[in-house]
This record gives sequence, structure tokens and C-alpha cells, in this order.
Amino acid sequence: MLLFVTLFSRPSSSVVRNLSDISEGNYGLSGISHITVAGAVHHGMKEIEVWLQTFAPGSGTPIHRHDCEEVLLVLKGTGTLLLAEPGLEHPGETTQFQFSQNSTIAVPPNSVHQIINTGDEDVQLSAVMSRPPVRVFVYQSFSIPHAEAVHFPAPWDMQCFAAGQGEQNSCK
Amino acid sequence: MLLFVTLFSRPSSSVVRNLSDISEGNYGLSGISHITVAGAVHHGMKEIEVWLQTFAPGSGTPIHRHDCEEVLLVLKGTGTLLLAEPGLEHPGETTQFQFSQNSTIAVPPNSVHQIINTGDEDVQLSAVMSRPPVRVFVYQSFSIPHAEAVHFPAPWDMQCFAAGQGEQNSCK
Repeated sequence: MLLFVTLFSRPSSSVVRNLSDISEGNYGLSGISHITVAGAVHHGMKEIEVWLQTFAPGSGTPIHRHDCEEVLLVLKGTGTLLLAEPGLEHPGETTQFQFSQNSTIAVPPNSVHQIINTGDEDVQLSAVMSRPPVRVFVYQSFSIPHAEAVHFPAPWDMQCFAAGQGEQNSCK
Repeated sequence: MLLFVTLFSRPSSSVVRNLSDISEGNYGLSGISHITVAGAVHHGMKEIEVWLQTFAPGSGTPIHRHDCEEVLLVLKGTGTLLLAEPGLEHPGETTQFQFSQNSTIAVPPNSVHQIINTGDEDVQLSAVMSRPPVRVFVYQSFSIPHAEAVHFPAPWDMQCFAAGQGEQNSCK
């Protein structure tokens, strides 16, 4: 086999990166640590976005929805997913699902949901989303109308939007 | 907060699943173990597909490309990515990147590449792709023309296509 190997002729940072070199933060979300493994705003992804998130015991996501597909792979810990039935004006009744290490969760697009660490150790999960950058609708509770949900970029993308004065890629 | 919680009113298999309940196989690829965590053919995903793959020492993927975005998250082990420069008629020269646990790899769409476990222990990685179901172009070597690459569904999707006589969802 004819194989041409040229060591490091591409900038390695664009292809292979180490998670320890990627910024990690809680972005105002108590008990949460977030890393954008690969994202639209930070890395120019166009079709998929990958996050790595850690939740301390008792912490969780806001109640929220997004209009993209989402798959979670639970790497550590145990917790609960609250998932609302689709409703035209309000989220409907919620179903509670338990998850643990080696669970995978498929959150249907636009389903209002919340992930909570209900165990005694950290929950770590990889979250994969389509249609980046992800836009999040945040609900004060599961009972408020969809029209009252507040629409944000994901918290870890906000500083890039702000820094770029509207340009998405200022944090690349 | 008004919160309606109904335990298990949805079939849990469609939202939360355990990896141990998902079929795992090598699909003719020596040294490889593959799980489709969430896929188009098996689970009706429309925009993203998530795989979990384990490579024994010395094993690797075929030399291949696909026309979608791909992000890998390395959960265990050490290995090498061979990535060809884009070329109009042939793959170009390859660059070699080392990766290890906690590396993330973004493979550019249509770049011909190969992942090899060059370490002494298993490599385990989560692979995320857009545009499912994934179509793979397999190359006998990095030097053959693109026109000679053979075009397949991913090996783990083939039995579903065959069983369904053309219907994609027979393995759901």
C-alpha cells in the first residue's frame, strides 16, 4: 500500500484537540460544568454540536426545549429526566425516566424537559445536538405557556455573540 | 411550581435505553465492536447518529470517507488518525495525528481517513455523525482514485436494508 504520511502538516488544533485544552465553565448554571467539545460558534460546526457536561448531586438543567434532535450518552452517575408530553399551548404532563451510567437518552425535538442529578455522585454525560448553534427556550415551570418561555442562545455561546457584536464566530 | 409527574406513561424504550440492551457486533470488521447508540435505520433519527465503538490493539477502521460531519470523543485508549488532504481525483497525502483518552477529533466531511488503535489497550470512542443513515465510501488504499472507492451503507445498517427489502426501518 502506498501511504504518504506527513507528520503535523495540518494545524492539529483543528482536527485533534484535548478536552483539557478546551475552556470549561458553569456559565451561571449552579452545579454544572460545561465543555463545548465541538460547536458551531466555537469550532465552525454546521450540522452537529457535541457537549460534555457534569452535574453535581442535586443540580440540573433549566426546564427547556430546543427545536433540534438531542442524544445523551451517560458516562457516569444516576439521575432523572422529566419529559413533558407535547402540548400546543403549554407543555403537557411530564413523564419521569431514571437513567444511569451507560444509559442513552433521545430527547424528541421541541419536547420540554429537564435533567436532574438525583444520585449521590456527579453525573457526566455527552450531549449531541443537530442544527447548531443551539437555541434554547427556557421555562420557569412546566406549567407556563410556550409563549412565555424565554429564548436564548446556549449560555456558553452568549459571550461569543456578545464579543463578536452579532458575529457568531468570535470564539473560534 | 405545578408539576405533573406520571411514571412510565411513555414506553421507556423510545426515550431512555441502556447500552447493554442494544445489539453489539463486529459486522465483519476484525477487532472492532460496534453499538448504534442512536441511528436512522434502528431508531428513526433524522439529523444525527451516535455510535459507540471499541477497537482492540492493532485494529482499525477501513480507509474511508463520508459526506457528513463527524466528531469523535475518545473515552479510552490511544491511537492514530490518518487523514488525507482533499484531492480532486485521489486522496492527497495523509497527515498522522495521535489521540488518547479525552481527545476529541473533528473529521472534515469527505476527507479520506482511517482510525487505528496503535496502543496496548482497547480504544473506545463515541462517534457522532450528521445526515443519517451514514453512507461510507471504502478505499483499498489511500492512493486509489475516488472513483474506485466502493459505496456502502454502514455495515451495521446493511442487515436492516436487506431484511426490509429496501425499507430502511426494519431493524427499529
